[in-house]
Amino acid sequence: MSGMKVTIWNEFRHEKTNAAVKAIYPEGIHVTIAKAFADAPDIEVTMATLDDPEHGLSDSVLDQTDVLFWWGHCAHGEVSDEIVRKVQQRVLQGMGLVVLHSGHYSKIFKTLMGTNCSLKWREAAEKERLWNIAPGHPITEGIGEYFELEHTEMYGERFDIPEPQQLIFLSWFQGGEVFRSGCTWERGNGRIFYFRPGHETYPIYHNAQVQKNPVEFGTLGSTTSPHIYRQGAKQPCT
Amino acid sequence: MSGMKVTIWNEFRHEKTNAAVKAIYPEGIHVTIAKAFADAPDIEVTMATLDDPEHGLSDSVLDQTDVLFWWGHCAHGEVSDEIVRKVQQRVLQGMGLVVLHSGHYSKIFKTLMGTNCSLKWREAAEKERLWNIAPGHPITEGIGEYFELEHTEMYGERFDIPEPQQLIFLSWFQGGEVFRSGCTWERGNGRIFYFRPGHETYPIYHNAQVQKNPVEFGTLGSTTSPHIYRQGAKQPCT
Amino acid sequence: MSGMKVTIWNEFRHEKTNAAVKAIYPEGIHVTIAKAFADAPDIEVTMATLDDPEHGLSDSVLDQTDVLFWWGHCAHGEVSDEIVRKVQQRVLQGMGLVVLHSGHYSKIFKTLMGTNCSLKWREAAEKERLWNIAPGHPITEGIGEYFELEHTEMYGERFDIPEPQQLIFLSWFQGGEVFRSGCTWERGNGRIFYFRPGHETYPIYHNAQVQKNPVEFGTLGSTTSPHIYRQGAKQPCT
Amino acid sequence: MSGMKVTIWNEFRHEKTNAAVKAIYPEGIHVTIAKAFADAPDIEVTMATLDDPEHGLSDSVLDQTDVLFWWGHCAHGEVSDEIVRKVQQRVLQGMGLVVLHSGHYSKIFKTLMGTNCSLKWREAAEKERLWNIAPGHPITEGIGEYFELEHTEMYGERFDIPEPQQLIFLSWFQGGEVFRSGCTWERGNGRIFYFRPGHETYPIYHNAQVQKNPVEFGTLGSTTSPHIYRQGAKQPCT
Repeated sequence: MSGMKVTIWNEFRHEKTNAAVKAIYPEGIHVTIAKAFADAPDIEVTMATLDDPEHGLSDSVLDQTDVLFWWGHCAHGEVSDEIVRKVQQRVLQGMGLVVLHSGHYSKIFKTLMGTNCSLKWREAAEKERLWNIAPGHPITEGIGEYFELEHTEMYGERFDIPEPQQLIFLSWFQGGEVFRSGCTWERGNGRIFYFRPGHETYPIYHNAQVQKNPVEFGTLGSTTSPHIYRQGAKQPCT
Repeated sequence: MSGMKVTIWNEFRHEKTNAAVKAIYPEGIHVTIAKAFADAPDIEVTMATLDDPEHGLSDSVLDQTDVLFWWGHCAHGEVSDEIVRKVQQRVLQGMGLVVLHSGHYSKIFKTLMGTNCSLKWREAAEKERLWNIAPGHPITEGIGEYFELEHTEMYGERFDIPEPQQLIFLSWFQGGEVFRSGCTWERGNGRIFYFRPGHETYPIYHNAQVQKNPVEFGTLGSTTSPHIYRQGAKQPCT
Repeated sequence: MSGMKVTIWNEFRHEKTNAAVKAIYPEGIHVTIAKAFADAPDIEVTMATLDDPEHGLSDSVLDQTDVLFWWGHCAHGEVSDEIVRKVQQRVLQGMGLVVLHSGHYSKIFKTLMGTNCSLKWREAAEKERLWNIAPGHPITEGIGEYFELEHTEMYGERFDIPEPQQLIFLSWFQGGEVFRSGCTWERGNGRIFYFRPGHETYPIYHNAQVQKNPVEFGTLGSTTSPHIYRQGAKQPCT
Repeated sequence: MSGMKVTIWNEFRHEKTNAAVKAIYPEGIHVTIAKAFADAPDIEVTMATLDDPEHGLSDSVLDQTDVLFWWGHCAHGEVSDEIVRKVQQRVLQGMGLVVLHSGHYSKIFKTLMGTNCSLKWREAAEKERLWNIAPGHPITEGIGEYFELEHTEMYGERFDIPEPQQLIFLSWFQGGEVFRSGCTWERGNGRIFYFRPGHETYPIYHNAQVQKNPVEFGTLGSTTSPHIYRQGAKQPCT
């Protein structure tokens, strides 16, 4: 599909201040995610970060955004309420929103869900297996029964979210927890996809990892809006 | 069920300032609603209004509230954000919430829905027929295929809400509109029921009307929390 | 999207035996529906009817079907259980299914829903207004707030179906009824769309009508499978 | 709630022919389940088995049934289609249905779901942890974050069911699988609860086990119909 426009928003703080994170994502998580779209020539990628003016989310940027990816962790509180309201309105008008990992606690996700979006977590570099619960959904195109991440932060239930419209992935963790790791909702005219994998101290979004676990980024690329759905089939998953 | 505790919150402004409203609800809409519970001896009713300290919703009142009814119209903006956050947390912890009519635009409802909760409206004293879409649900106990209100304000789709967990009532309006007039959602551990009927210049909640259309209040009495569900069967509906 | 394959199944009995129906659909309802796809060159249309061998639904036909349209009315009971089981399995494997009007009582629809799929009806050539409840959904692309049919058979609630995944259209009828006229469900890997309009004695599917109410067929063309979703934007709606 | 009527249906074949099963459930699984209701004096329990006339499900028995429990495994095919249709109609009219464990493949469950209800399974006496996803739901009353079964048959996704109305339990299995182990749906006026635990060669339903894991039976006792919901709070869970 020609001209699909993705904006990748990253808090971009850990990568500047934490040596371990910097080593994995020297240019920032957003750049790593953006590179995952390099083989999808129809997708135009824009990047935006917290410390840009208006957090990089000016009206002109949002006017050019079909789908917004959101990664944040330690600075959720610094996102201005005005920008959150603006992004909420864009979603209700039809923009897709993909919330990644610790973005579950972002203002924009909590605002759209109406709940606390709380969960359990543990950093033990344990194994995660993501079961494909919706094999007919475009997001899971090219994924078989499950895919695995060898070393990941654990997120456990109960995840305080409204019942998803569709449950896409269910995670099993080595330590005994389960998690609804891929969920869709519709709000207004927009679609929202929460995708659990990803952590600043594990190379989940890194190219090297992506080359080993390509299915993971396949799921990011084929996402929540009808426009992006169309991209699904064309994106190389191997 | 013994000791079920209902708190009825009313903005209580129209009734003081507008002669037409005052004529219909001289003591306030909350008092009229409270009286509808008079024949349910197991239900303890508390009332609270916007101009009470803490809007009448102190921690000690909320501690004693299983289900909160909410009526507001012209002063949604005067409800403090702090109280809204507190009520939201109570709902997520398990308190039932019944939002009435123009409460669709209240801060608490919009916060819990995550959407704009906008709709169409017209004041033409037209006929409304509420079709019972969930005949097996406790809320509709004692209601047949539909019930009617002869002179009502119209609310029309599209109502900007998340897909309800269950659609309870669908309204037909004389002028050509339809509306999802009874909807349930779960958020956190709490249940939410939106119920459309009611307007400050029509005697929808007035005893005389209730005596003619008793089913309407039956729906208010058997509501969203498991505790109130239990009440359903015991409440006289004729 | 190149090569999307639609099979239109029609009971094709009324058109042979009833002069009034024959006058409106001389070649059969399936041919009229097929012609509505004439301007969508990427869509390959196949037709099948009850009196064909295997009801026209051989394995080789189903192998070449991305989406199956189903129109039936007076001969539901003559559809073989074996064919119904086969079509059910195809849907569960990912085939889209669009059930039209009186197809609500077809074996295949009842089998996939698990309910009686009963409803009220009245033939009074009354006005129907279909409100667009899902303006962000591909099915409603190009439709505004609502569209109208001047003379239609009424279908009224309660429609005995499982809660839809998404409610697309809500009908208002002149005579006082409402109906969930456009509904989606997912079953297995397949998507199902029920679309109410259409009747054998009203020219709902006829070209002349379509030219006056083109949006109606726009909704049929952009339907339930991701493949057909992609077609939505390209299909001329005027 | 006085006079709530539960009928427990058991295939009752393994217990007669298999020594291992007989040792665990000498009187039949139905009797063990029935005894779990012994401390709930308001509940009247009836039992019915496959080899009874009309499978024990005559009209007069069904007339006296508010909720039907269903356990079957090796003889699903021997249940008559006529009885299945009758039970389906009762559910649609408002009877609650609790489907246990291998009952996922019963005719009645598949009929009501419209899908294949297939799943993965493995008998390795492995550990299962059932996470409570719906802490505000009556079924989970008295259950904390999770409960565990030390030695159980594994059931794994993808479970081919329609998206549940509400997800109640999510299971984690030692061997790497997850499963939607407690799910609710509404069909017609009736409510359905699928509950995974239970196997004929593990003493899941046995009193001794129940005494160790009382919460498990608590979930069976407070179930799907509003009538049974009311029972929830009164049932001893320790």
